[in-house]
Amino acid sequence: MEALKNDRLIRALRRQSVDYTPVWIMRQAGRYLPEYRATRQRAGDFLTLCQTPELACEVTLQPLARFDLDAAILFSDILTIPDAMGLGLSVHEGEGPRFARPIRTAADVAALGVPDPEDDLSYVIEAVRLIRHELAGRVPLIGFSGSPWTLATYMVEGQSSRDFARIKQMVYDAPATAHQLLKVLSDSVSIYLAAQAHAGAQVLMIFDTWGGVLAHADYRHFSLEPMEQIIQYLRADPIASDLPIIVFTKGGGQWLARMAATGCDALGCDWTSSLGQARHQVQDRVALQGNLDPAILYASPDRIRAAVAEVLEDFGPGPGHVFNLGHGVTPGVDPDQVKVLVDAVHELSRTVT
Amino acid sequence: MEALKNDRLIRALRRQSVDYTPVWIMRQAGRYLPEYRATRQRAGDFLTLCQTPELACEVTLQPLARFDLDAAILFSDILTIPDAMGLGLSVHEGEGPRFARPIRTAADVAALGVPDPEDDLSYVIEAVRLIRHELAGRVPLIGFSGSPWTLATYMVEGQSSRDFARIKQMVYDAPATAHQLLKVLSDSVSIYLAAQAHAGAQVLMIFDTWGGVLAHADYRHFSLEPMEQIIQYLRADPIASDLPIIVFTKGGGQWLARMAATGCDALGCDWTSSLGQARHQVQDRVALQGNLDPAILYASPDRIRAAVAEVLEDFGPGPGHVFNLGHGVTPGVDPDQVKVLVDAVHELSRTVT
Repeated sequence: MEALKNDRLIRALRRQSVDYTPVWIMRQAGRYLPEYRATRQRAGDFLTLCQTPELACEVTLQPLARFDLDAAILFSDILTIPDAMGLGLSVHEGEGPRFARPIRTAADVAALGVPDPEDDLSYVIEAVRLIRHELAGRVPLIGFSGSPWTLATYMVEGQSSRDFARIKQMVYDAPATAHQLLKVLSDSVSIYLAAQAHAGAQVLMIFDTWGGVLAHADYRHFSLEPMEQIIQYLRADPIASDLPIIVFTKGGGQWLARMAATGCDALGCDWTSSLGQARHQVQDRVALQGNLDPAILYASPDRIRAAVAEVLEDFGPGPGHVFNLGHGVTPGVDPDQVKVLVDAVHELSRTVT
Repeated sequence: MEALKNDRLIRALRRQSVDYTPVWIMRQAGRYLPEYRATRQRAGDFLTLCQTPELACEVTLQPLARFDLDAAILFSDILTIPDAMGLGLSVHEGEGPRFARPIRTAADVAALGVPDPEDDLSYVIEAVRLIRHELAGRVPLIGFSGSPWTLATYMVEGQSSRDFARIKQMVYDAPATAHQLLKVLSDSVSIYLAAQAHAGAQVLMIFDTWGGVLAHADYRHFSLEPMEQIIQYLRADPIASDLPIIVFTKGGGQWLARMAATGCDALGCDWTSSLGQARHQVQDRVALQGNLDPAILYASPDRIRAAVAEVLEDFGPGPGHVFNLGHGVTPGVDPDQVKVLVDAVHELSRTVT
C-alpha cells in the first residue's frame, strides 16, 4: 500500500512533534452531512449502509472532501459484534438500536460464540480494505470497536437505557455471568480489531460509551480490565502491535490515571475534563484526544474559534494532542461550522507547537 | 419548637463524631412507595400534590414510618421557582416537566422577577412549617432548591434535554444573557432557601442535577459561582447562617476541590467517585454525602449489605460521612430493599465510627 502522506495523527498519538495539531471529529461521517443523508436514503436503511462495503467507504470519505481532516474513521455501527453473535439487531431512526434476542441468563451467555471477523463480519473487513485503498495514503484510517462493557449494556438491556438496571443487576447479583459475557466480548473485540489492522487500519480506537455509568470500583473490573485484555492481545499481534491504540471512556474523567496504565497510546477526554489537568494526571505517559463540547458547533464562528484556542491553550505546549470534540457531532449541526472548527485548529495550533 | 432528638445528620455534616453514620435517601418520598402513589392519586396530579401543604407533609413523612431514617427532606418539585416566575409548568407522567413559556431571549430574561417566597411560593413555606411541626424533633428537616444552572437548563430548553443545545447556545453566544438569567435565579434561590430556614428547615441542600453537562471551565462560571453567591447570602442571614449547607453536582466528581471552596459544609457525591479519594481531594474540609449506586437496590439483600460495607470502608474512619445513594431512588425499587439498606448502614457503621 501507498506510504502515508499525512502522518500527523500517528505522530501525535506517539507523542512525537508535529507541525500543527491534527484534528478529526467523532461521527465526522454522519447525519449532519446532506451527502451522508443522500447515501443513506439510497441504501434504504442504516444497517444496509453499514453492511455494504462500497457505501460504507463512500460515507467514510465524504467528510474528507469537505474538511481538511487529518484522519478518516471507518464508518460502521458500534453493535456489529453482538449482531454477528445472532442477537438480531435493528436500528430505527430516533429510537436507537434494539436486539430481538437480548442476553439475560447464564445460559444465554454460555451459548454465545466469538464471531470470525473474516467470515461473520466480512462486510466490515472488506470496507476497511476498500477505504484504505481509496484513501491512497492521504490520511490514516482509524478502525474501531465498542468496548466489551458498552456492547454488554446493549446486549443485556436489549436497547438504549437510562438507568442500566438489567446489566447492573447482572453485575451485582451474578458477577460471574457478567464476567463470562465480558470475556467472550473481549475475545471477540480483540480479533475484530486485529482483523481491521490486518485489513489496513492504521490506528485502533475502543469506544467505551457507557463505562461512565459504573461505580468507581466496578469500572475497573467490568470496563477497564476487559479493555486491558484487548490491548494485551493486540500488543502480541505481529501487525496490530505497531498501531497506536486510543481508549475513550465517556464520563471517565476521574479514572484517567488508571486508564493510562492499560498500555494504550492515547486517551479520549470528554469536555468535562481539563486537558491540562488530564496531562498532569497521566503524567504525559499517553497522548490525549479531545475535548471540545460538541454543543459549541451551534455557536457563532468567532466563538468556535475562541473555544478552539481555549482547548489548545489548556493542553499547553509539547507533543501528544489530537484535537477532537468530547463526543460525536450532533445531527443538527451546520457542516460549515465544522469547517470553521477544523480550519481553526490548524491555523491556531501552528503558533503553539 | 421542640429540641432535636436525633442530631446525627447535623453532627455528621459539621464533621463531629456520631455513634453511627446517619442515612437518608434522595427521593426517599416517592413513586416506589405504594402509600405515596395512593396520596398522589388522591391529589389528582403531581403539582397539586406539591402545592397542597398537608399532602406534601404527608408524603414527606411516609418513608419515616417505614425506615429508620436520620432525616426528612421537604417533598417539593425542583421547578417551583420558574413556575412562580410565570413560565407555566406542567408535569406529565413519564414525560418530565414542560414550560409553556420557555426563556429564549435577553428580553425574556429581563422580564423575569424574583419570586417572594412568602407570597408566590407560600405553599412551600407552609409545607416546611407543617412538616417541622409534625416531625416534633424526631429527625431534622432538609430544605432544598435546584441550583441556578439546573433551573436555567429547564427554563431555556423548556423541557428535559439530551444535549442541552439551547442553553449552551446561550452560554456560548450570549453569555451576558446567561449570566443575567443566573443572577435572577441565584437571587431567587437565596431568599427561597432563607425562607425555608426561617420556616423551620434545619439543613439546606442545593441540587445541581445538570452541572455535570458543562465543560470544565464553564462549570465554574455558570454553575459553581451562582451557587457560591447563594451560600454567601445564606451565611449573612441571621437564621440560615446556622444551618449546614450541602452542595450536590451530579457528575461533578472532577470538581470536588473547587466545590469544597464555596463555603458549603458538605458535598454530595455520585457513585462514580470514590469517597476515600474525594476526602483526599477536599482535604477533609467538608463532609461528604453518598454515594451508593441506586441500581444496587435491584440486587439481593446480601449484595446490598456488602455494598453498604464497601461504601463505609471507602470513606474510612473519622467523622463527616452522611450515607445516601449517589442519586435518587428509582420508581421500580421494592421498598423492602430500602429497609435493608438503611438498617445495614446503622448496623455496619457502629463498628467503624
